[in-house]
Amino acid sequence: MIYTKNAIDAFERRYRANFINSLGGFKSLVLIGTKNSDGSENLATFSSLFHLGADPALCGFILRPATTFSSTLDNIIEQQYYTINHVSPAFVKQAHQCSAKYPKGVSEFEQVGLSPEYLENIPAPFVRESTLKFACKFVQQTAIELNGTTLVIGQITTVLVPETFVKEDGYIDIEEAGTVTSSGLDSYHTTNRIERLPYAKP
Amino acid sequence: MIYTKNAIDAFERRYRANFINSLGGFKSLVLIGTKNSDGSENLATFSSLFHLGADPALCGFILRPATTFSSTLDNIIEQQYYTINHVSPAFVKQAHQCSAKYPKGVSEFEQVGLSPEYLENIPAPFVRESTLKFACKFVQQTAIELNGTTLVIGQITTVLVPETFVKEDGYIDIEEAGTVTSSGLDSYHTTNRIERLPYAKP
Repeated sequence: MIYTKNAIDAFERRYRANFINSLGGFKSLVLIGTKNSDGSENLATFSSLFHLGADPALCGFILRPATTFSSTLDNIIEQQYYTINHVSPAFVKQAHQCSAKYPKGVSEFEQVGLSPEYLENIPAPFVRESTLKFACKFVQQTAIELNGTTLVIGQITTVLVPETFVKEDGYIDIEEAGTVTSSGLDSYHTTNRIERLPYAKP
Repeated sequence: MIYTKNAIDAFERRYRANFINSLGGFKSLVLIGTKNSDGSENLATFSSLFHLGADPALCGFILRPATTFSSTLDNIIEQQYYTINHVSPAFVKQAHQCSAKYPKGVSEFEQVGLSPEYLENIPAPFVRESTLKFACKFVQQTAIELNGTTLVIGQITTVLVPETFVKEDGYIDIEEAGTVTSSGLDSYHTTNRIERLPYAKP
């Protein structure tokens, strides 16, 4: 079946959101933890995290137009730090629930039943239940004027992961660690390795 | 285990690349097809595709600093179009091989044994073997000066997918379609759905 631009434009709004969100393939599913200067904590679901570079270690994610996630960006700018937490099957429902639009000042940790935990000198809460998590220092935000989204870039400063998942060559076996992937707006998946392949040469 | 910034900085280069590339979670694995005005075709592996918006339908991906993928960007700018093709288990080895640094002018289609196919008015090759694929019209490129990478944004214009995978609400079941996900630099995975969850409300 071929869906033309005209057909896609004519889709009902929610139908189009489901359809277009599916096209990007499987996505990284993470919870981003922040707090503000009053100590009020925020935890938000993101599926747009991507690798930007290993040296320096950088990653980026996309914030939707203002409103919804404003606590996340406000807190990041205020504290200059945020945490990124992988999601396991055991708390995928709670992770999904963090995508609800809670009023500012309400802690998603409390609302969904996840536990904040802190490391010294990192003013952002990690998710205790998360097996693989890391802290980012804010580096820059870039407005994507096209549709009002914002690209947030951070430098990875501290990584928490059980050593058993870190293989000889530095690869972290995130499947063994139980990391979940998502598709579309609301589908969650575990994975089965096909294989690891050697570095490709012509 | 806690890995500090100093520990990460001290990692051997390849070890660090494996480690940091694993942190982003499971990734979208796609082949991006382009051609130049001479008709010379290019096919490149990407794992940084992300959803940017549904209305208009936009997606973005990250190009590494110049050299390697320059054919992809050159062709996109020249023809204003590119295709994005999901990868199935049946050709995951060929998809991985497209990440090798072939000289300019060499067709990865021929080198790895995948078949280009065309739609009228879209001057970029699709991968015939791919079950779910779409064309993008180039919208903008944004230099990320921090590390020399480039964010390329495109508008989704035409989607090819068997109707059976498109569900009642517009969600495309990419697991049923056999879409593969990747982790780190070289690990490939199929998925098992945990569940789809209803829209989250506070």
